[in-house]
Amino acid sequence: MTDDRRHMWRALELARRGRPYVAPNPMCGAVIVKDGKLVAEACHEAFGELHAEAAALKVAGSGARGSTLYVTLEPCCEHYEGKKTPPCVPALIEAGIRRVVVAVEDPHQHVRGKGLKLLREAGVEVEVGVCKEEARELNAAYFSHVERGRPLVTAKWAMTLDGKIATRTGDARWITSDQARNEVHYDRGCTGAIIVGIGTVLIDDPELTARGEVGRQPVRVVVDTDLRLPLESKLVRTADQGPVFVYAAEDSSPERQSRLEEAGVYLILLQRHGKTHLRWMEICTDLGERGVNSAIIEGGGSLVASAFQERTVDRVKIFVAPKVFGGEDAKSPVEGPGVPDVSRAVTFTKLHTRTLGPDIVIEGTVVYPTDDGPSPSGYWTGYGGDNP
Amino acid sequence: MTDDRRHMWRALELARRGRPYVAPNPMCGAVIVKDGKLVAEACHEAFGELHAEAAALKVAGSGARGSTLYVTLEPCCEHYEGKKTPPCVPALIEAGIRRVVVAVEDPHQHVRGKGLKLLREAGVEVEVGVCKEEARELNAAYFSHVERGRPLVTAKWAMTLDGKIATRTGDARWITSDQARNEVHYDRGCTGAIIVGIGTVLIDDPELTARGEVGRQPVRVVVDTDLRLPLESKLVRTADQGPVFVYAAEDSSPERQSRLEEAGVYLILLQRHGKTHLRWMEICTDLGERGVNSAIIEGGGSLVASAFQERTVDRVKIFVAPKVFGGEDAKSPVEGPGVPDVSRAVTFTKLHTRTLGPDIVIEGTVVYPTDDGPSPSGYWTGYGGDNP
Repeated sequence: MTDDRRHMWRALELARRGRPYVAPNPMCGAVIVKDGKLVAEACHEAFGELHAEAAALKVAGSGARGSTLYVTLEPCCEHYEGKKTPPCVPALIEAGIRRVVVAVEDPHQHVRGKGLKLLREAGVEVEVGVCKEEARELNAAYFSHVERGRPLVTAKWAMTLDGKIATRTGDARWITSDQARNEVHYDRGCTGAIIVGIGTVLIDDPELTARGEVGRQPVRVVVDTDLRLPLESKLVRTADQGPVFVYAAEDSSPERQSRLEEAGVYLILLQRHGKTHLRWMEICTDLGERGVNSAIIEGGGSLVASAFQERTVDRVKIFVAPKVFGGEDAKSPVEGPGVPDVSRAVTFTKLHTRTLGPDIVIEGTVVYPTDDGPSPSGYWTGYGGDNP
Repeated sequence: MTDDRRHMWRALELARRGRPYVAPNPMCGAVIVKDGKLVAEACHEAFGELHAEAAALKVAGSGARGSTLYVTLEPCCEHYEGKKTPPCVPALIEAGIRRVVVAVEDPHQHVRGKGLKLLREAGVEVEVGVCKEEARELNAAYFSHVERGRPLVTAKWAMTLDGKIATRTGDARWITSDQARNEVHYDRGCTGAIIVGIGTVLIDDPELTARGEVGRQPVRVVVDTDLRLPLESKLVRTADQGPVFVYAAEDSSPERQSRLEEAGVYLILLQRHGKTHLRWMEICTDLGERGVNSAIIEGGGSLVASAFQERTVDRVKIFVAPKVFGGEDAKSPVEGPGVPDVSRAVTFTKLHTRTLGPDIVIEGTVVYPTDDGPSPSGYWTGYGGDNP
């Protein structure tokens, strides 16, 4: 590993510290090195706090002069409405940084190579692309939002070794261990939105909050074409404690619409496709417009199936518990019609498996069965056109 | 790790070399050490070949005098009908072995502590129990057969990340990679019997042979209460190339019985329980009487479910492919009625996960939900009494 890669690796590691706190900003880490010696390191700690570069400059003080800065994302350069902190490029120039090594360009409309250009124009040596893939992976949600206008979507489920998400009677508490459920809550706290189908709400009456000490509360989203969401559900009753979005068909009952809105739910009406269906593309675009850059679909099996059919799922995270339920009528994690042939299956790359207490966690990046593969960024850029 | 454990660990490692070749004998490894230096090491290579102790003595020659022998199973001591090689205890005494360290006693009716007793009576220092648990695990199939009179039963399945064993149309070729299928064939070659239900035969028409270069051919077993096995199935057509056992009800069609027997199939008639059911206890006891000490149930989902219900499954081996099929009608690996509550689930200990090419392999030891847990030997000693 070269020195450049080693320092950037450290910057990536620092960046991850901000995971639960920075959204919708990207995670970012910075390391300042002079004559081979570490001068400062920092990360973007939380939304509204200093950027990583600024925080590192603050630590370095006059030690920054003549040094090299490693940063996981292109430094920002312009002031614009809504921006919380001063731009980093002028500060880097002023501090006398000699060389800037950047992992990846920032696709944000106010950056997009402008930061690099300004640095070069000021005589700073600039290098781009060190640990680029890792840096894109780190901020896959941010890149998805900026580049595609919609969130990075992860389908998450917990199942037994025989692929069941509940017993034949619907009992599912609890399939996995405390450790796994803690991780689910941690993940929720790092994610913009948690999405469930109305079926899951009617059966489980979930709260969908992130319980634990870190992170923020995700937006809670129900896909509910015909507005069956009960006013007495936990989601509606806790709507004043954190936003609940309900996606429903334009032609759903106006009476139910006004009752739910009165109860504090954000109602978003979309066109109905077929008898019961809303389009994932429209839901995700709307979420993107509202600033949501990551979402977890937590089920049930029909909703997850439709998300795969419409090529909306970018990642999976599966908790496998060392249990067997059996049961030909027990629910499975992905239902819907399903693919006819093995060759039409959704497949996965970057599979990662680990144990977590007694359970197993499997994560992967989705590859849909067409000629156009996933983008090099690691998320799916294609959409639709392949519904059965 | 003590020196004794270290040498025994090596003996266990040597023993595993015999896995595809020794059954129905146990695997066995032996190491001879004198003054801290390795004198000889050997294993029981194949059924009918020298025992590990005898093979090690042969390598050691006169170097065995005054040494310590480490052996993974109590040495044999008697000659009896059908025994292929001379007993080891007299040979060890004659060779002047000073000390014998044994991992575990051999429960075989012609050994059972007699070997240890004879060694002690001849003035040899004897120690028992070093790496005992590992040694029982090594020969779990042998211990099952000798102690319970029936084979160690492993349920094996290949499924997708969403718990499907076929698409909705029944397509299952292939779910897993070449590497996984090679391992399935290797396992078959190390196993006494492969068991499938008649449903699987009617759908897949499998051969159930071990393809590859190692091991022997397992007995192929069909559970076929009503004798629906077609005369033109691959199993019947290849019955002359390796035994095919068919378990059927006593009151199945006498005409079909004689046709299948004429075709070369071994027909075993058992009592019918309920409308379509044979009892796993009776099948396994019969297989044990025929010398089968290990069996793999390869499906389908109803057969595997009944084996869990009747507490016949001791182990699972699951190949998980990085694919999603979806489909509420797609088959799942364990069907049947299933358990009603999470608390009634079959659970697993000694879970082991690894990657194999693109796939994931999960292995575990079954724990049934009752007051009496699994035996310390790692296989289930209880039976029945808990059918829904």
